[in-house]
Amino acid sequence: MLEKLKEEVFLANLELPKQGLIKYTWGNVSAVDRSQKLFIIKPSGVDYDAMTADDMVVCDFEGNVIEGKLNPSSDTPTHAVLYKHFEDIGGIVHTHSQWATAWAQAGLDVPAMGTTHADTFYGPVPCARFLTSEEVERGYEKETGHVIVNTFAEHKLDPLEVPGVLLHGHAPFTWGKTADEAVMNAVVLDEVCKMNFYTRQLNSYAEELPQYILDKHYLRKHGKDAYYGQK
Amino acid sequence: MLEKLKEEVFLANLELPKQGLIKYTWGNVSAVDRSQKLFIIKPSGVDYDAMTADDMVVCDFEGNVIEGKLNPSSDTPTHAVLYKHFEDIGGIVHTHSQWATAWAQAGLDVPAMGTTHADTFYGPVPCARFLTSEEVERGYEKETGHVIVNTFAEHKLDPLEVPGVLLHGHAPFTWGKTADEAVMNAVVLDEVCKMNFYTRQLNSYAEELPQYILDKHYLRKHGKDAYYGQK
Amino acid sequence: MLEKLKEEVFLANLELPKQGLIKYTWGNVSAVDRSQKLFIIKPSGVDYDAMTADDMVVCDFEGNVIEGKLNPSSDTPTHAVLYKHFEDIGGIVHTHSQWATAWAQAGLDVPAMGTTHADTFYGPVPCARFLTSEEVERGYEKETGHVIVNTFAEHKLDPLEVPGVLLHGHAPFTWGKTADEAVMNAVVLDEVCKMNFYTRQLNSYAEELPQYILDKHYLRKHGKDAYYGQK
Amino acid sequence: MLEKLKEEVFLANLELPKQGLIKYTWGNVSAVDRSQKLFIIKPSGVDYDAMTADDMVVCDFEGNVIEGKLNPSSDTPTHAVLYKHFEDIGGIVHTHSQWATAWAQAGLDVPAMGTTHADTFYGPVPCARFLTSEEVERGYEKETGHVIVNTFAEHKLDPLEVPGVLLHGHAPFTWGKTADEAVMNAVVLDEVCKMNFYTRQLNSYAEELPQYILDKHYLRKHGKDAYYGQK
Repeated sequence: MLEKLKEEVFLANLELPKQGLIKYTWGNVSAVDRSQKLFIIKPSGVDYDAMTADDMVVCDFEGNVIEGKLNPSSDTPTHAVLYKHFEDIGGIVHTHSQWATAWAQAGLDVPAMGTTHADTFYGPVPCARFLTSEEVERGYEKETGHVIVNTFAEHKLDPLEVPGVLLHGHAPFTWGKTADEAVMNAVVLDEVCKMNFYTRQLNSYAEELPQYILDKHYLRKHGKDAYYGQK
Repeated sequence: MLEKLKEEVFLANLELPKQGLIKYTWGNVSAVDRSQKLFIIKPSGVDYDAMTADDMVVCDFEGNVIEGKLNPSSDTPTHAVLYKHFEDIGGIVHTHSQWATAWAQAGLDVPAMGTTHADTFYGPVPCARFLTSEEVERGYEKETGHVIVNTFAEHKLDPLEVPGVLLHGHAPFTWGKTADEAVMNAVVLDEVCKMNFYTRQLNSYAEELPQYILDKHYLRKHGKDAYYGQK
Repeated sequence: MLEKLKEEVFLANLELPKQGLIKYTWGNVSAVDRSQKLFIIKPSGVDYDAMTADDMVVCDFEGNVIEGKLNPSSDTPTHAVLYKHFEDIGGIVHTHSQWATAWAQAGLDVPAMGTTHADTFYGPVPCARFLTSEEVERGYEKETGHVIVNTFAEHKLDPLEVPGVLLHGHAPFTWGKTADEAVMNAVVLDEVCKMNFYTRQLNSYAEELPQYILDKHYLRKHGKDAYYGQK
Repeated sequence: MLEKLKEEVFLANLELPKQGLIKYTWGNVSAVDRSQKLFIIKPSGVDYDAMTADDMVVCDFEGNVIEGKLNPSSDTPTHAVLYKHFEDIGGIVHTHSQWATAWAQAGLDVPAMGTTHADTFYGPVPCARFLTSEEVERGYEKETGHVIVNTFAEHKLDPLEVPGVLLHGHAPFTWGKTADEAVMNAVVLDEVCKMNFYTRQLNSYAEELPQYILDKHYLRKHGKDAYYGQK
């Protein structure tokens, strides 16, 4: 079942430790098959050395396991909610990568301070609020998804233009058209959080990038007038 | 004598440089055999390249060498006191890992600022006081153990729920049910100290994690209602 | 056409990830043939693993492609302007290396705080201003080149004595007599930005290097009285 | 001539990039033969990949080349002065390692804030003053040696108890009984500078280590009552 997508998800999970985004098993990647309304996700707490593509778990958009002998990632209900509500995304990544996590713990949006940011994120990356105790009781992982979705609705953000979020006191989620793109966006978000940290320490009055430069950099890589790369 | 445990302790010691927790020989791991009231510990100041499982030293809970041709780690009396008083722990790690050591030198408890912390430590990791000059004279390494034990008694902490401590002006000790778990806890403590450092620099008013989220994350991985992993 | 220079440019591009200056394809190196008024540059957005010397693109000083089946780096017009105006330089590097980018985002010149700086840069490395919205509209990459050239004219700087610049809100450009030297200057600039960051955090009153020590270190490595190395 | 010592110096130089203390050729190691009053030092500006033990240069205590086909390190006169005045040292290391260099640029002594420091340095590591312009003119590298020697005399420091120094605006020198020990001391100094940086940022009121703990840690590793290791 969905063998090709399982392989993609498996390989994308292996990218996380290679890119220095995770230690041990502190992360997970998934990818969706939109035609079948199913997604593939990493099993929970399995050593990366022992894991194979066959260990990947197939779930539906309610987070139910459809196929797989192992428990899916404990964050599966969050992925399910995001696939349901963000209808154009194809892959999702969750890590506790250090720099994005530091900003998440600080409860701060990541401002667009440079073109490294603007090449991938079309504006600040929002930090979503703490869940309430009622939400935690009702279903921590599922409500985490709802808080993300509501944050994007409130800020009127397009999830493909701002393909990531921080969760206050927790860590980042990123996404993209594919699992691979979601991983790359996780790398960019962590790098941008690092650079912005040092920028702010150097100069607490440092300005955000002017809107017309943000536009220029984002749009030279994305959308119909893009001219970056070989397309 | 205790050949299997020697191998475990040997391999766990090799993990320290692999995980970036130590330089040269600045660390030590031990593990206990509760039935015999003996523990195995690394020899003192031996190059990791030259060391073998056979070089591990067997000690009793008074810190006496029971078997072994080399001197045990100079921190052996600290390990002995911890095994005697923390009756459920199986392995102990001491390193001068950089981030935990920075917090130890700063004399600060490590606050629970995020879920990375909450997944392993059920609340702040305490920083124990400097030894007095009388304690240093009486027996530096043994009294270090007593200061740790007293710190946990005063804070009414369960050593398995908060499996680590900082020593003011010195560095961390961590422990766990096994030597391997103690190493993993040393990795987590250093990572958390790093993330919390950056969090505080970004936002000196950053809040600690709400108690109900701390509960949720710790208890989804530990105790009878845990649902993380494949158990 | 210019096969030897293509090979040099290809190898110099591969140095960027090796030296930790870039992630993915976020950088580019070029080198010039002054006799033909042509330069060779990396293609845009091509994976470093898949790239070959043959993929390098030949351009003239207006940024037109003279030979090559792939699109050149989107920053090609900046390189073209620099080769046209800085008549003694032989190679150019652009990266988003983290430390230099942090200073660029902070909008700060890099002061000469130590001899590591003085061995390569004969005085502060300037941070050029944001482009105006008119300049961005007129041609972002070409105008970036003009802003660099004007910054050097205003500060009366010799591009070979100060072989690099920061662009506010963006990242560094460095150059040198060859592509290899330009890469080495990119490494030095990033290292100096890192050291100066920590220096300033340690002591916000830290002094710049006295002029006579700056002279001594720069001139023992550069110019007719140099005595460093084997020349 | 002194083939065994050349091999030692060669290998100790190779340790510098392995330990992350230098980039390119920014460092040098030497070792002395006290009976012949000669020392061996790395040649100036030679690539580490191309260098062999045979390329090492033999010098006397005035810095004259006694044997060797290459120019010695440009810092040779500094080494010569140190061997002449610090009569018990056997090896010297100079690097621009990032953390020690940051403290040197900040012009600050490195305080003894923890036991990592106390295990190697018996008290603060001093930062020597800038050279005057007269000293630079008279002979920059030789006068650098004199400033180090005078700093130790003024502070009444034993060079084997405090085996290193920072030079304001420049970088560290370390030394030891052998070239290998001097390299290890360079690693410790950089690590301590890193830890102390983070300690100070966490808590600007952080105390230095009490004298009796400094004594305890230094003396358990050094001197007649040492009990660390296998001696």
